[in-house]
Amino acid sequence: MRDLAALPVAVDAMGGDHSPGEIVAGAKRASEELGIEVVLVGPPELVGDTLGLELVACTEVIAMDEDPAGGVRRKKDSSLVIAAELVRDNKACAMVSAGNTGATMGAALLRMGRIKGVHRPCIATPLPRPGRSPGVLVDAGANAECTASMLVQFAQMASAFSTARFGTPSPSVGLLSIGEEPSKGTPLVKETHEILKDPSAGVNFAGNVEGRDLLGSSFDVVVTDGFTGNVALKTMEGTLRFLMGELFSVFGTNDETRAATDVLMPHLAPLAASLDPESAGGAMLLGLEGVCIISHGSSSATAMMNAISVGHDLATAGITESLRQAIHS
Amino acid sequence: MRDLAALPVAVDAMGGDHSPGEIVAGAKRASEELGIEVVLVGPPELVGDTLGLELVACTEVIAMDEDPAGGVRRKKDSSLVIAAELVRDNKACAMVSAGNTGATMGAALLRMGRIKGVHRPCIATPLPRPGRSPGVLVDAGANAECTASMLVQFAQMASAFSTARFGTPSPSVGLLSIGEEPSKGTPLVKETHEILKDPSAGVNFAGNVEGRDLLGSSFDVVVTDGFTGNVALKTMEGTLRFLMGELFSVFGTNDETRAATDVLMPHLAPLAASLDPESAGGAMLLGLEGVCIISHGSSSATAMMNAISVGHDLATAGITESLRQAIHS
Repeated sequence: MRDLAALPVAVDAMGGDHSPGEIVAGAKRASEELGIEVVLVGPPELVGDTLGLELVACTEVIAMDEDPAGGVRRKKDSSLVIAAELVRDNKACAMVSAGNTGATMGAALLRMGRIKGVHRPCIATPLPRPGRSPGVLVDAGANAECTASMLVQFAQMASAFSTARFGTPSPSVGLLSIGEEPSKGTPLVKETHEILKDPSAGVNFAGNVEGRDLLGSSFDVVVTDGFTGNVALKTMEGTLRFLMGELFSVFGTNDETRAATDVLMPHLAPLAASLDPESAGGAMLLGLEGVCIISHGSSSATAMMNAISVGHDLATAGITESLRQAIHS
Repeated sequence: MRDLAALPVAVDAMGGDHSPGEIVAGAKRASEELGIEVVLVGPPELVGDTLGLELVACTEVIAMDEDPAGGVRRKKDSSLVIAAELVRDNKACAMVSAGNTGATMGAALLRMGRIKGVHRPCIATPLPRPGRSPGVLVDAGANAECTASMLVQFAQMASAFSTARFGTPSPSVGLLSIGEEPSKGTPLVKETHEILKDPSAGVNFAGNVEGRDLLGSSFDVVVTDGFTGNVALKTMEGTLRFLMGELFSVFGTNDETRAATDVLMPHLAPLAASLDPESAGGAMLLGLEGVCIISHGSSSATAMMNAISVGHDLATAGITESLRQAIHS
């Protein structure tokens, strides 16, 4: 895939809560520190200083809270749509955005198109597992409603993604449910369980997984519909953030507790980092004829650099071809 | 409701991972420390020492991992079924079990029956909110599949429960979804949103709530189907447990960190307690002609005492009548 390695990563300079400042800074760091070629996309007057990076100019921006479908349809010269076109036209190996997730999906789907045979693209998100490579949760929110054949494809594609992204040889797949028994769950879950456990599904199915085992999961891939996956992921994030907030409030109680915290902090910092969604390098949209990385809306320059790196590495490793094979095997 | 206050709480002595020891000990403490009359239910040879408490003898036990429907159907002289019959026959004001959740629901539903007009009973679980009274999550797992009219009744009943249990005057109700906009979510969520926002639903509807806001929620009641609710609740529990485990591992790194932890612990203990499901007093099955409290499977004596206290207080406060009114208003 030498041709892809020679192509830059297209970065939506206007996506995310801290755009364009942190986005451009992250792109610059990817270029300088990692040697990855980057091209920014956005309206020049809004992007401002590009820090010497190339800018593909466009005239529109889809806002974070804008209706995704309408935004993509109306704003054909928006940074998201143009970034997707750069990938489609073989002018970029991947696109990265921290912007409106729905609009990113819409732009990527409309401009790059689906891999042949894929029912619906889905979002694969890293699940933190301190001390080990992350697990993968799929679908993290692209499809609120799913069929069993969609879930089976999600499992197939997320397995290929786990191998390409984290080097897991034969990723174990868990199906998110409300009990380990195959008889538990919705009709959708029961039907999917039956298909996945058949070797012809082509995945290393390990059974149902419950919500309590998501964080630090023993499963390499956790499959669920986009509604449940989004709720579970946000519940995990919210619980972590809530507990961190309460802890820091305790740490700051008085001089004594602050001194004790100083002793613990060098040991707590790696734990906090391993649970930080920013360190994970973003989520990937699986099932498209091109690489699209969706970074957290609150992405810092570091998060963007990581996401750009992930996009570049996956593209040059031939993830799209791996996904094609996963679907057709 | 003087008649109910005079009745004992029926306690399934054989339910839970630590039965009968912790269960009987918790019942004894409820009796001694709180002055609540208690009657144990179980096979005498398995229960053993009742610590002087009354025992209603039966011959069977439904195991924690037994098929709920089959267990309730076959084991008509099980501790769960007999406990439910004591409530039905006005010999107990409430039943409490830390056993097989599905079988507890089945026994309570079959023996007590539904409140007239209730489509399906549901599980209301406390959501920790340190520094404030807990929120209520409903349905926490009774119904994997729901209709909009079921969810609306859950909201109505959980609002009445929030008022009876925590004294919240006009509980705010949030609908669990994947975005705040009414247009987000599954068709079920969108339909429910439309009904709940109409004043005729009789609840204080405050809009959609996301998973990230479950813990420490600003909503007094969070409504969802039993599949999503169960996944979200277990994800929250698992995330808390995982992070606590990682923290304690850091705390024990060396002598220095252990000394620092000793300084922080008096301040951390109240936080941990406020997040502990054991302190919440268990979940309640809403929609039945009688009070049924489901305590955590891992319940200690303290958790059982709390659950017995909650069951007694709700029964004597007339929760069943409040639920009837919530449904018919």
